[in-house]
Amino acid sequence: MVVVGAGPVGLAIAWRCAARGMRVVVHDPAPGSGASHVAAGMLAPVAEAYFGERELTGLLTESAARWPGFAAELAEATGVDIGYRTEGTLVVGLTADDLAEARRLWAYQQGLGLPVTPLRPSQLREREPALAPRVRGGALAPTDHQVDPRRLVPALRLAAERAGAVLVSEPVRRLRDVTAGVTVVAAGCGAAALTGLPVRPVKGQVLRLRTPDGGPPGFRHVVRGYADGEHVYLVPRDSGEVVVGATVEERSDLGVCAGAVLRLLRAAVDLVPELAEYDLVETLAGLRPGTPDNAPILGPLPGQPDVLVATGHHRHGIVLTPVTADLITDLITGGGADPLLAPFRPDRFAVTPNAAPAAEPPPSGGVASASAVGSGARTTSERAMEDDSWN
Amino acid sequence: MVVVGAGPVGLAIAWRCAARGMRVVVHDPAPGSGASHVAAGMLAPVAEAYFGERELTGLLTESAARWPGFAAELAEATGVDIGYRTEGTLVVGLTADDLAEARRLWAYQQGLGLPVTPLRPSQLREREPALAPRVRGGALAPTDHQVDPRRLVPALRLAAERAGAVLVSEPVRRLRDVTAGVTVVAAGCGAAALTGLPVRPVKGQVLRLRTPDGGPPGFRHVVRGYADGEHVYLVPRDSGEVVVGATVEERSDLGVCAGAVLRLLRAAVDLVPELAEYDLVETLAGLRPGTPDNAPILGPLPGQPDVLVATGHHRHGIVLTPVTADLITDLITGGGADPLLAPFRPDRFAVTPNAAPAAEPPPSGGVASASAVGSGARTTSERAMEDDSWN
Repeated sequence: MVVVGAGPVGLAIAWRCAARGMRVVVHDPAPGSGASHVAAGMLAPVAEAYFGERELTGLLTESAARWPGFAAELAEATGVDIGYRTEGTLVVGLTADDLAEARRLWAYQQGLGLPVTPLRPSQLREREPALAPRVRGGALAPTDHQVDPRRLVPALRLAAERAGAVLVSEPVRRLRDVTAGVTVVAAGCGAAALTGLPVRPVKGQVLRLRTPDGGPPGFRHVVRGYADGEHVYLVPRDSGEVVVGATVEERSDLGVCAGAVLRLLRAAVDLVPELAEYDLVETLAGLRPGTPDNAPILGPLPGQPDVLVATGHHRHGIVLTPVTADLITDLITGGGADPLLAPFRPDRFAVTPNAAPAAEPPPSGGVASASAVGSGARTTSERAMEDDSWN
Repeated sequence: MVVVGAGPVGLAIAWRCAARGMRVVVHDPAPGSGASHVAAGMLAPVAEAYFGERELTGLLTESAARWPGFAAELAEATGVDIGYRTEGTLVVGLTADDLAEARRLWAYQQGLGLPVTPLRPSQLREREPALAPRVRGGALAPTDHQVDPRRLVPALRLAAERAGAVLVSEPVRRLRDVTAGVTVVAAGCGAAALTGLPVRPVKGQVLRLRTPDGGPPGFRHVVRGYADGEHVYLVPRDSGEVVVGATVEERSDLGVCAGAVLRLLRAAVDLVPELAEYDLVETLAGLRPGTPDNAPILGPLPGQPDVLVATGHHRHGIVLTPVTADLITDLITGGGADPLLAPFRPDRFAVTPNAAPAAEPPPSGGVASASAVGSGARTTSERAMEDDSWN
């Protein structure tokens, strides 16, 4: 089988399938250089449970529940520390208006039976004294964890290679050039050009701060805040890094703009004032693979049962990696379609095949784009895969 | 003669002296990598005329008056466009309080006979429609111009080399290792370790924005603003670049901190809203060479008449380059001491020679530091200079 795209999703599928004895070739000229390079790595099915996305919330919750086992298996297979941390997430509101907005969402989340516990201001400060005194209130989502995507990708690559998968840098430009029994398209935004599915780039700008002394940040929880109407998250790492994100923009350039940096920094410093003294070490934009209903696209491409799609993860690629890998691997290895997959099948969207060759690849560096994962050339390893089948 | 330091001041002196027939060797392992690499290049004697700095203001005014001729000579000598622009500077106040602060300074500047003309809000907007409607008022300083320091340094280097000066990368660590007839110390903050004079690093953080389409910025004047108590300047360049600066901090690290970026961006966007949509392309810190009275140190080192100092230019290195080069060159070539120099003589400060070898060099990349311009090794070219004298 061939996997197109060596981001977390593609690599996790390659690892799982190779571990079950399949011959796997993964194509990507720049593994891990796409959306995962920019991503903060929040595993937050509760804080990310929004009105009208009940089925997505179910998938997020299921995948988050698989994360502890997934992380343990990956550590077992590689010995790599992927920065998996379980302090939980504090969701806070800066002003009374911000808190009202947050409370409305907490009520919805509690109605779904999700674990989110409002805290008194004194409890909030007891947990995180670094929060600004202005912060009006908050809640704890104890099961919303985090991982470091920039450690996750190399670990998944090592695990996949140790299980026998082969990574090649030759890009895949057209699916018909691949003659493996099964092809998995895990190419992020590049899936649009390869499959004709309605995957579009959704730009996100993210900052990375660092403690001036290199010690760990002055707070341990992931902090998600509403700050004067801005939504911001702050993800602390043991290395001293704090990821501050993120914009959600319907555009496909990779520029970092002054206004976005200003809004992110203002919200971050309003919530945790000591961040003003941290070094600003990186400003970066990436492109998430979005879909018309904000949910991923998982399963066989209509009319091409030997092409499996695993993309469209939008803002949830890291948290959805374990469940995506499990479900796609089951499909390939004959376990059949899990009922979990039903709402996310590719055939809920129209396919516009003509889009494929015409689509302009996004600028380099952002995601595993069509040009970044595609080439008309067939490789020896692909020919060797021709006898593979997906059951 | 030997010049230690190939920033604008050292290179301009080398150019002038070489043009008068002297043999000149300039030592610097990284020409133009110091404060000038970070500087915005405002030539603003009027807007920079502060209470209690009357003598400095006189020198700034004199040097600014020499800039048109200096720029023309440099263009003549090199054909390089150094981005010299004469639209003038708008000084604006965002709030009533900001405007009151600005007006107090304008009155002082007008009392000195300096050209600063208050404008009605309608006149301000006529000149720069990009200014925020919130801006309460402003004034025009028509003789406060700008130049691009990153173009200036290569131009000065070319002019100096064409006039016969030789640049060498060997650093100068101790003055006693140099046996040229005359040594000019134009080493920025590095002058402290070389001379024992009280030159200290004053950190400045600066941003560079760029128009998204690469066209020129939406405003033509240099804009200096008071914005909710923050002082900020915005320097537009034809290339599409806008320099936003600058902090003034009594510290010597080169970190870019989140709080400084936040304050600069907030003030910039408050004054010129469209800057929010510009790309943020660079965040950088540099170290200015400051002195106890904020004025430069120009002239012979006490007890060492063959060592001439030209440093301590603090926030005024670019504007003061022409007059510094002229006055030091006159000293060297026997023109005698111009009365202009009197207030800036090195002997107004105590020299602490023991500081020299012990002083820690600042981190790399910031300025022409002691370690960046010094080495115990004598070079052939230095030996060839031994017969030079400074008159």
